[in-house]
Amino acid sequence: MPTVNAYAAQNATTPLAPFQIERRDLRPDDVQIEILFSGVCHSDIHQARSEWGPGLYPMVPGHEIVGRVTAVGGQVQGFKPGDLAGVGVLIDSCQDCPSCAEGLEQYCENGHTTTYNSRERDSGNLTFGGYSSSIVVREEFVLRVPESLDLKAVAPLLCAGITMYSPLRHWKIGPGHRVAIVGLGGLGHMGIKLAAALGAEVTLFTTSQSKADDAVRLGAHHVIISSDPEAMKAARASFDFILSTVPTSHDLAPYLKTLKLGGQLVIVGAIDPVGVHGGLLISHRRSVSGSNIGGLAETQEMLDFCAEHGIVADIELIDMQDINAAYDRMVRNDVKYRFVIDMASLGREAAAD
Amino acid sequence: MPTVNAYAAQNATTPLAPFQIERRDLRPDDVQIEILFSGVCHSDIHQARSEWGPGLYPMVPGHEIVGRVTAVGGQVQGFKPGDLAGVGVLIDSCQDCPSCAEGLEQYCENGHTTTYNSRERDSGNLTFGGYSSSIVVREEFVLRVPESLDLKAVAPLLCAGITMYSPLRHWKIGPGHRVAIVGLGGLGHMGIKLAAALGAEVTLFTTSQSKADDAVRLGAHHVIISSDPEAMKAARASFDFILSTVPTSHDLAPYLKTLKLGGQLVIVGAIDPVGVHGGLLISHRRSVSGSNIGGLAETQEMLDFCAEHGIVADIELIDMQDINAAYDRMVRNDVKYRFVIDMASLGREAAAD
Repeated sequence: MPTVNAYAAQNATTPLAPFQIERRDLRPDDVQIEILFSGVCHSDIHQARSEWGPGLYPMVPGHEIVGRVTAVGGQVQGFKPGDLAGVGVLIDSCQDCPSCAEGLEQYCENGHTTTYNSRERDSGNLTFGGYSSSIVVREEFVLRVPESLDLKAVAPLLCAGITMYSPLRHWKIGPGHRVAIVGLGGLGHMGIKLAAALGAEVTLFTTSQSKADDAVRLGAHHVIISSDPEAMKAARASFDFILSTVPTSHDLAPYLKTLKLGGQLVIVGAIDPVGVHGGLLISHRRSVSGSNIGGLAETQEMLDFCAEHGIVADIELIDMQDINAAYDRMVRNDVKYRFVIDMASLGREAAAD
Repeated sequence: MPTVNAYAAQNATTPLAPFQIERRDLRPDDVQIEILFSGVCHSDIHQARSEWGPGLYPMVPGHEIVGRVTAVGGQVQGFKPGDLAGVGVLIDSCQDCPSCAEGLEQYCENGHTTTYNSRERDSGNLTFGGYSSSIVVREEFVLRVPESLDLKAVAPLLCAGITMYSPLRHWKIGPGHRVAIVGLGGLGHMGIKLAAALGAEVTLFTTSQSKADDAVRLGAHHVIISSDPEAMKAARASFDFILSTVPTSHDLAPYLKTLKLGGQLVIVGAIDPVGVHGGLLISHRRSVSGSNIGGLAETQEMLDFCAEHGIVADIELIDMQDINAAYDRMVRNDVKYRFVIDMASLGREAAAD
């Protein structure tokens, strides 16, 4: 089994550091990818630090992967060496349940396998993510990456992008809809770009006046400072659809009040209790739903949509060696809007050893 | 203006007692109805006791009204003296907003007018409900009551029935759907009957083993004792649709876990905060929604559906003089499943005076 360079957390409390991992030998349906860029998702921090339950260590985070195919197994039809390729949050699922049959691998009834902090279905070996020089993934979970886009800024589409795109598409958002995005971070900035490209009229809810200009630059038509009671009151019953990117427990009541009759609020980040006031649902037949990334077919559709519309993430490129400082900045919300690791930096380190 | 006998609360703390009210003179579009039966809804207690905010007194509760037309205004087309007629929770709305145009008067953007504890749109006079010998209502808010049904048991359809029917229809419940009803009371027992008649496979969630047999008699196919952890675990991810009739703040998490991918939980009674765990929504793209009674056209459709399927409420008939004792029993959940007042009893009292 090939040994490759990576950065890993050895436990929940120590910084990430260089580590060598083994990737499996190519199976007939496997694609081997040299990783060029790896996005840094807030969930990488949550998992590396065991904030979402005990993590599996050593842990190599990273599930926003863009790279180039270096080898393929004998049965692989869709990829050949030299092709661009992407890997997101999922690398496997049962492929047999009704959800998988519908292309909803993210809702696999037998439990999907995530790109890291998980175990391979057959071998039981730990899975290792994108903070590494290469990865081996079965073809069904490898995405085609359009050559026309800025590759380093494509990486965040694989998680942040699809997490916004899937609910927008599922609830059929398009021209004529008034959409609001709650929060301007890695997810929120993609939500603005994608909702606007789908033809909706887009508003950003933010607590920060300083983000207002940026939101407009990203494509928002309006900004509402959610701490301003008058502005919130003026927005009552005005939106068809709200996407809340807030990653922690929060009170949905102020946002629910701004939904029209039959309006829909979708949360994608808060896995904790959220505040829901029954009267606000009953009075306007409003709904609160959740949405989890997207399936493979939908993720491919999203990448193709982004190519068509020239959409990528706003990123800050870092070296692998800067990852711990980047985590600290992310915890302070100090990034516009996604760190992406230039994985060539890992090779330079290895060469210097 | 005609003076009519009624029972009223004079404030939030004293029992209901005989009282005389004035009904307006007939307008050209008005229907005058002699009230035969008046259902007793739990919200009558909440409002009479100012438990939902300060009530408007004197208050004559009652919004499940069945009676016979005694006179009509000159422009009334759909009713004539002698016809059966019903009045539910609404007696007016703006008739001008998009919601009213869609027949969704319960979501009138300018605020609907309720049958009691409200004020007439033009005069500003208090509205008085069904605990009275007659009522005057504009034709658009009067329902046709099928002659084939047991009239006293029809009354609860006007609130409990439509409150269950509207979400079942809005979310297109029918054959092939697995539906659960939470709670077996006035609403829940109608939910079982209506969901079963719509062709769904119906389960009752209840904390009370003693209600299990009754639920099956009412049409439920299964009963789950919600305090039994094993039974709840066995029900995981099995329902398409859940209607929660619980009238107070409650934790939805145990029920959300029993919803399938894309499943929908609808609350109709709890106007307080309800417990919603974001992770349970996100993991299965589940939704929590609210629903408020139904519009006039849908209420008529429900009455016609009930006539076609021979559906009425299970009731206990009482005299008007028994109302305070009935309230006490309702607070203890001691009614199967709805009290209905025989309004002839009010006439006998008046005659004895």
